Amino acid sequence: MSIVLGDNRYGKCENRIVRITKQGPVHQIKDITVSVALSGDLDATHLTGDNSGVLPTDTMKNTCFAFAQRHGAVEIEEYALLLARHFVDSQPSIGHARVEVDEHAWDRIGQGPHSFVRTGGGTRTCTVHYDGTAAWVLSGVKDLTVLNSTDSEFWGYVKDEYTTLAEAHDRVLATEIHAQWRHAAASGDWGKSYERAKTALLEAFVRTHSRSLQQTLFEMGTRVLEESPELCEVRLKLPNKHHFRYDTAPFGLDNPNETFLAADRPYGLIEGDVRRDDAPAAGPAWT
Amino acid sequence: MSIVLGDNRYGKCENRIVRITKQGPVHQIKDITVSVALSGDLDATHLTGDNSGVLPTDTMKNTCFAFAQRHGAVEIEEYALLLARHFVDSQPSIGHARVEVDEHAWDRIGQGPHSFVRTGGGTRTCTVHYDGTAAWVLSGVKDLTVLNSTDSEFWGYVKDEYTTLAEAHDRVLATEIHAQWRHAAASGDWGKSYERAKTALLEAFVRTHSRSLQQTLFEMGTRVLEESPELCEVRLKLPNKHHFRYDTAPFGLDNPNETFLAADRPYGLIEGDVRRDDAPAAGPAWT
Amino acid sequence: MSIVLGDNRYGKCENRIVRITKQGPVHQIKDITVSVALSGDLDATHLTGDNSGVLPTDTMKNTCFAFAQRHGAVEIEEYALLLARHFVDSQPSIGHARVEVDEHAWDRIGQGPHSFVRTGGGTRTCTVHYDGTAAWVLSGVKDLTVLNSTDSEFWGYVKDEYTTLAEAHDRVLATEIHAQWRHAAASGDWGKSYERAKTALLEAFVRTHSRSLQQTLFEMGTRVLEESPELCEVRLKLPNKHHFRYDTAPFGLDNPNETFLAADRPYGLIEGDVRRDDAPAAGPAWT
Amino acid sequence: MSIVLGDNRYGKCENRIVRITKQGPVHQIKDITVSVALSGDLDATHLTGDNSGVLPTDTMKNTCFAFAQRHGAVEIEEYALLLARHFVDSQPSIGHARVEVDEHAWDRIGQGPHSFVRTGGGTRTCTVHYDGTAAWVLSGVKDLTVLNSTDSEFWGYVKDEYTTLAEAHDRVLATEIHAQWRHAAASGDWGKSYERAKTALLEAFVRTHSRSLQQTLFEMGTRVLEESPELCEVRLKLPNKHHFRYDTAPFGLDNPNETFLAADRPYGLIEGDVRRDDAPAAGPAWT
Repeated sequence: MSIVLGDNRYGKCENRIVRITKQGPVHQIKDITVSVALSGDLDATHLTGDNSGVLPTDTMKNTCFAFAQRHGAVEIEEYALLLARHFVDSQPSIGHARVEVDEHAWDRIGQGPHSFVRTGGGTRTCTVHYDGTAAWVLSGVKDLTVLNSTDSEFWGYVKDEYTTLAEAHDRVLATEIHAQWRHAAASGDWGKSYERAKTALLEAFVRTHSRSLQQTLFEMGTRVLEESPELCEVRLKLPNKHHFRYDTAPFGLDNPNETFLAADRPYGLIEGDVRRDDAPAAGPAWT
Repeated sequence: MSIVLGDNRYGKCENRIVRITKQGPVHQIKDITVSVALSGDLDATHLTGDNSGVLPTDTMKNTCFAFAQRHGAVEIEEYALLLARHFVDSQPSIGHARVEVDEHAWDRIGQGPHSFVRTGGGTRTCTVHYDGTAAWVLSGVKDLTVLNSTDSEFWGYVKDEYTTLAEAHDRVLATEIHAQWRHAAASGDWGKSYERAKTALLEAFVRTHSRSLQQTLFEMGTRVLEESPELCEVRLKLPNKHHFRYDTAPFGLDNPNETFLAADRPYGLIEGDVRRDDAPAAGPAWT
Repeated sequence: MSIVLGDNRYGKCENRIVRITKQGPVHQIKDITVSVALSGDLDATHLTGDNSGVLPTDTMKNTCFAFAQRHGAVEIEEYALLLARHFVDSQPSIGHARVEVDEHAWDRIGQGPHSFVRTGGGTRTCTVHYDGTAAWVLSGVKDLTVLNSTDSEFWGYVKDEYTTLAEAHDRVLATEIHAQWRHAAASGDWGKSYERAKTALLEAFVRTHSRSLQQTLFEMGTRVLEESPELCEVRLKLPNKHHFRYDTAPFGLDNPNETFLAADRPYGLIEGDVRRDDAPAAGPAWT
Repeated sequence: MSIVLGDNRYGKCENRIVRITKQGPVHQIKDITVSVALSGDLDATHLTGDNSGVLPTDTMKNTCFAFAQRHGAVEIEEYALLLARHFVDSQPSIGHARVEVDEHAWDRIGQGPHSFVRTGGGTRTCTVHYDGTAAWVLSGVKDLTVLNSTDSEFWGYVKDEYTTLAEAHDRVLATEIHAQWRHAAASGDWGKSYERAKTALLEAFVRTHSRSLQQTLFEMGTRVLEESPELCEVRLKLPNKHHFRYDTAPFGLDNPNETFLAADRPYGLIEGDVRRDDAPAAGPAWT
């Protein structure tokens, strides 16, 4: 028996980059957080501390900023592909790159040509893998909190000796959407695709009369694929942000599903994958 | 010499209340976080553990939810005044109440009558004090992050032996606005007043060619008071969210104020008070 | 009527400084977070953007690091006094300085001469004020979470129409201690004083059979003052970290105060001041 | 082409359970956070909202608390196995359970029989999988922050056009250990095994003269396996918590690796797997 090195990777996480585009007096803002992870022939640094194959994470940081400056405010998927290809194609020891980008939303303030306010309503994300030959692209959204104040039920479930939950025929359904979707090809109109997928998620959430958050999840994934021929798979993580009807009867007050306690922990978590049955192989896309 | 009890108060913090208003199929949502602090004749519980004058914080919680149910989705200032007056007027041992409310922003999703998405762009706040006779009302906004990509300078400052900062004639100015403003009277059109003050803050931020964040702060406070005759004082906390121009010269790239590193810590913090010179006494409003 | 500038201050927050002391092969670590706030004759920068009296916050940062290097790992109160005096005494426009320091705890790993592990058990704090003539020193501890699994009761309180809480004759009492204490003079054996005060807080928490968290608070403050002649006032913020007995009766299980749900929000908050009746005036110490 | 449901699971996350053991006047505390994820034959709820195979997450919560009460303060691995087996063995629709437990550290305060203080120094973790036949057990530690103030170098790395990092022959090496290790069998002396593995991690960190964090990672994993015959694989995530030597030369001060700026973001991240070459198959253990 001997002890061996298994899978490994390394990188620089959470580079905070703001890129201002100035074409005349009207500016644009792009605010991104970038994380890089590389792997390859890195046994030497692990086993002996020989760093001759190691591109320092400090250099990865410099490269992220340099590419933001050189390539301007391109779509995050394109930017991530440029970085991933650069690291693998320029470094003999690096066989695989993963680049993750979050894009934080800003709106223009009124008519101000160079004034912006940060908004919520979800963070756009992408994850790109490149292995020297092929590339895989996931796009997505996170931190997108939504709530239906009716059209949600939950009943007909298993009862066992530990069950105390009452069946609900009208409840609040709230979740913070964390979704990623896989592109069938590593090229496309990334911006338009993102808007279409996000709209489909929200529309499915609005239109589904829900008997479980699982049902809503499947409807959301299905709608994205129906609207987006360029996508082949959707993965969703939907925490069930519980809103408990507050019992005001002890104070002589009726509460017909109007006043709720919004709970933090524990929370339900529903995770699921929705895909075309002819989706191409995912390869390393989800790792 | 003896040891004595000084100022004290107690309460229940961060009650998370969601109130749905249902008038026909179209619902409204109000999402608030409520904190209560009471003070009065509470020596006994501190000195001997005699709780005969103590209204439990659990009862405060129940009351917050009951009032949300009974009074519906009124403006947060009105709701806070109702609670503050209730606690002081109903409890002989309680002489003073402070009620703080944060209101979290949601938008309707498309035309969905009962579907909502949580947005950013600032949390509306209020703080109410009531002492059995008079009431004081602060309104405000927090978590409102804004950025000017030009029209900001910083030069002509003191240089000493520890100075290394280069003067800036064009820089990014970004801050997360934390503002509170004091109403001259404990009544008013709270909703309209809030919108007017928030708009004034943003307009002053946009229109000020800034030579220091202090100058921007004073302009913001001044604009709020100029636009809002019902307000008499504004307090602002403006963290300077540093955006450092990334030095891409080592890579043969020019960076004419386009690519920035957004830093977390340390950060500057500018705090200031702007008021009318005939403002009524603030009493306990800011405590 | 005109609009005027009121109180204001500015500074650099959360400078993260690690100072290693090397005397031979055995090293010491000091890990601190430092925040500076200065005030004085700063009207010009607010009103016109004239920065000729402004010491940049970037310079404050440099000074914090330079003083850590120059003065070594002195007690945080001494370090803060050195900084506060430097800023006021060297800058004509600055009339008042507040310096806050948090010290994060590390232990040595085994016998390793230069290896350390970060521990919990509370963060040591200090806040120093200096106005050119006098100095005020607060020391303290925060993030110190403690729990008594019995010897805590809560009953005999006010009942009103919103009361549903059952009286408790045996409950868990848990809190995260946030305490600050004021030194009567701006000099002393800071390290020894801190250890004595922290020990007194913990001993009072352990030994008090509590009928309310207010009673425990007063006992904690009293014990600190009894043990520490150099201190004149203690302020405590004690969140009541609720531990609710979980109702396991529906599952046919007795739960004699053994299994609890540890809740996050809402939480109770007890705040109080304990002082000697002959304490010197606090001046700006608590601002 | 059609759209299909892929992998899915659901559960209740972050149940916060405190279990007090009372054998006479001396109490013990066990403070855990428990998350459950179940999968199985759950197509119906996704596709049609038919919940007849769904055990509600609320019931999972009840079960976590009930098992804490019934089985007392057993080791977290044993507790997780009991829960995982219960869910799969009692529910026909459930084929697989994953139970994750974090155990938060508390120390006794002095000689107090029922008084405790929360400490740092790492959170003990476990993850258990059970599929109706076999069980897999991971144990681990997280939030364990360690620092070597010397005996760390980093040089001899790749230089490219984006490299600006200077080689370091003496630097601070700091990381927050996130480690998990896999047991070859689903039984054992969990408490003793945990202590041995944690000690091995720390000893390897202390004793390794590091030429890269990767080298330290491999030494840490190797030491754990050498000391622990019951373990077959270790996975480590080691963020490189950068400590930058502060340049005090502009102030006329030498800084011989004594004063550092502790940076937050970006940070390096080193991830690696160390295993015996005859380790049994991991199955679902790491999913």
